[in-house]
Amino acid sequence: MCSTSTTAIAPRAVASAIVYSKNGDPSSVLSAVSFPDLPPPAPRTANVRFLLSPINPADINVIEGVYPSRPSPSTDLSSDASAVFVAGNEGVAEVLSVGDGITHLKEKDWVVMTKPQMGTWMSSRNVRIEDVLKVDSSGLSAAQAATLTVNSPTAYNMLHDFVQLKEGDWVVQNGANSAVGQAVIQIAASKGVRTINFIRDRDNVESLKSHLKALGATHDVKLGLNCVGGKTTTLMARLLGENAHLVSYGAMSKDPLSLPTSLFIFKNLTCHGFWQTRWYDQKTLDERLQMMQTLTEHEILVIESWESDLDATGKVCTAIARLASGKYGKKVLLKIEETW
Amino acid sequence: MCSTSTTAIAPRAVASAIVYSKNGDPSSVLSAVSFPDLPPPAPRTANVRFLLSPINPADINVIEGVYPSRPSPSTDLSSDASAVFVAGNEGVAEVLSVGDGITHLKEKDWVVMTKPQMGTWMSSRNVRIEDVLKVDSSGLSAAQAATLTVNSPTAYNMLHDFVQLKEGDWVVQNGANSAVGQAVIQIAASKGVRTINFIRDRDNVESLKSHLKALGATHDVKLGLNCVGGKTTTLMARLLGENAHLVSYGAMSKDPLSLPTSLFIFKNLTCHGFWQTRWYDQKTLDERLQMMQTLTEHEILVIESWESDLDATGKVCTAIARLASGKYGKKVLLKIEETW
Repeated sequence: MCSTSTTAIAPRAVASAIVYSKNGDPSSVLSAVSFPDLPPPAPRTANVRFLLSPINPADINVIEGVYPSRPSPSTDLSSDASAVFVAGNEGVAEVLSVGDGITHLKEKDWVVMTKPQMGTWMSSRNVRIEDVLKVDSSGLSAAQAATLTVNSPTAYNMLHDFVQLKEGDWVVQNGANSAVGQAVIQIAASKGVRTINFIRDRDNVESLKSHLKALGATHDVKLGLNCVGGKTTTLMARLLGENAHLVSYGAMSKDPLSLPTSLFIFKNLTCHGFWQTRWYDQKTLDERLQMMQTLTEHEILVIESWESDLDATGKVCTAIARLASGKYGKKVLLKIEETW
Repeated sequence: MCSTSTTAIAPRAVASAIVYSKNGDPSSVLSAVSFPDLPPPAPRTANVRFLLSPINPADINVIEGVYPSRPSPSTDLSSDASAVFVAGNEGVAEVLSVGDGITHLKEKDWVVMTKPQMGTWMSSRNVRIEDVLKVDSSGLSAAQAATLTVNSPTAYNMLHDFVQLKEGDWVVQNGANSAVGQAVIQIAASKGVRTINFIRDRDNVESLKSHLKALGATHDVKLGLNCVGGKTTTLMARLLGENAHLVSYGAMSKDPLSLPTSLFIFKNLTCHGFWQTRWYDQKTLDERLQMMQTLTEHEILVIESWESDLDATGKVCTAIARLASGKYGKKVLLKIEETW
């Protein structure tokens, strides 16, 4: 666990994973475990090594047990008979070796996960061929590839699925320093769409209100993107023009949406939710491939191969605590190195 | 005004209207005024006598000055130079006489108003031919015709515009004893669609919750209709199934909508507003005609021709106070009789 030592203080052997055996506060339930080298891959599977694995807000919720998606247990990582879960939903991995019956993947290829909650906070693992998707590594950094399945797609799809935006249009969002928020800014900018961005702790409410009023007077804002909830979102919704759409993809404040009914009736506001997991459920592999583009700012958190499991656990927990304070502004990408 | 005498206590002469000269609490600003017989209608106008005119919640909001739609002043009804406004937006009237250039309307025909906020709480008036629509009186009671433009259409369109409902489907609504709510029940029943209906003061919240839970377990509710806001609506939204739509058309509690973000993200809830005025703006006359069907329960409030303006004022104010208490459950239709 994050705060106490449960493993011997020794360099990690070969391969590692960040796991938990029961839901709860990540700082109490997470631990790093080491495991032996992977056996050669079975037919139609591949052994892959993760290059970078994002720590997303939803990953925390999965560990806490308050998220609808749940991982399957990985019994082979447990020292006793009890099941453990490998944390992490998103990441880019390099193919180490492929089993029989695989022709379209080879060593050194990059893959992202197509099955949700596979467990990506680990150095290497075996995957079924149908659970990964090859990405073209030539035009992408590892950081870009690592956020290709959750953050950037969420930004991209929210900008495309609800309103037909054209050059010069305005979008307003809160949580603008989140990975999704930053992707929104970048993707919008690439289309000539302008963004009004709110981040936590800015201004006092009165100054924000008059700022918004001035903006609302000059811009007809058709799309609002919300990952916060509570009063900030109410203010943001009031800024929207006639027939606008408010899309919620998170609730970082844990406060519910509070919206005046008059916005719905007299300004014809429509409110939606967006969940990338549902998007994947409803789309084809081709549509998924077509959508892979964009970029996020990032920080790479390296777990060195010579670090002990205890040190590795501490590093991850520190990063999570920093993210939990909500002011970090960067996407943290885990890079768990192996001894090989 | 409702509470004080401002006119002589005498039978009303010829024709009357319920008017106000400034916005405010209806009980303070409304008064009945009498006016002389109408002159013969000018070309392309008609003189009509109102048979029944509903008192809708939105009418109260217009009088209070908190509604986006505003009536034009009727200077000819004022005893001095100041402008007065005739209250009322909906109603059915009988044609008394038509001016030159009118071929498709004749004496005794029934008409409803197509222009919003024309002022319908009066016994008779002159109307422009383009501001009224003839309705076939043969199959309709006056009460049905009187609610053809606001209440029943709101119910009808909310049941048709957001979700494709089929026989056996479930709809949940609050404010079920309102005129719209009752029309919802009737229109839904006529299509074999079943309704779960909430009215104010029912049960305590805990018993309501378990009731809802039981219902939610057995029915996949795809459409929620809300005219209340606040906690009731939150409970109702939680009852909705996956991919459901919550449509708000009123806010009787004056509390905002408070909705957990998770409903939007994980259950794909979509929230809309409905405003019949916008619907009319966007539709053709043919579409309007096609939509005219349905029925509401009603009570007819007769203002007798021999009653004084003071008595008439008192009657209207009493009805409004009763409606304001929110437990009346019936649509009140004004019938202002004339001396002729």
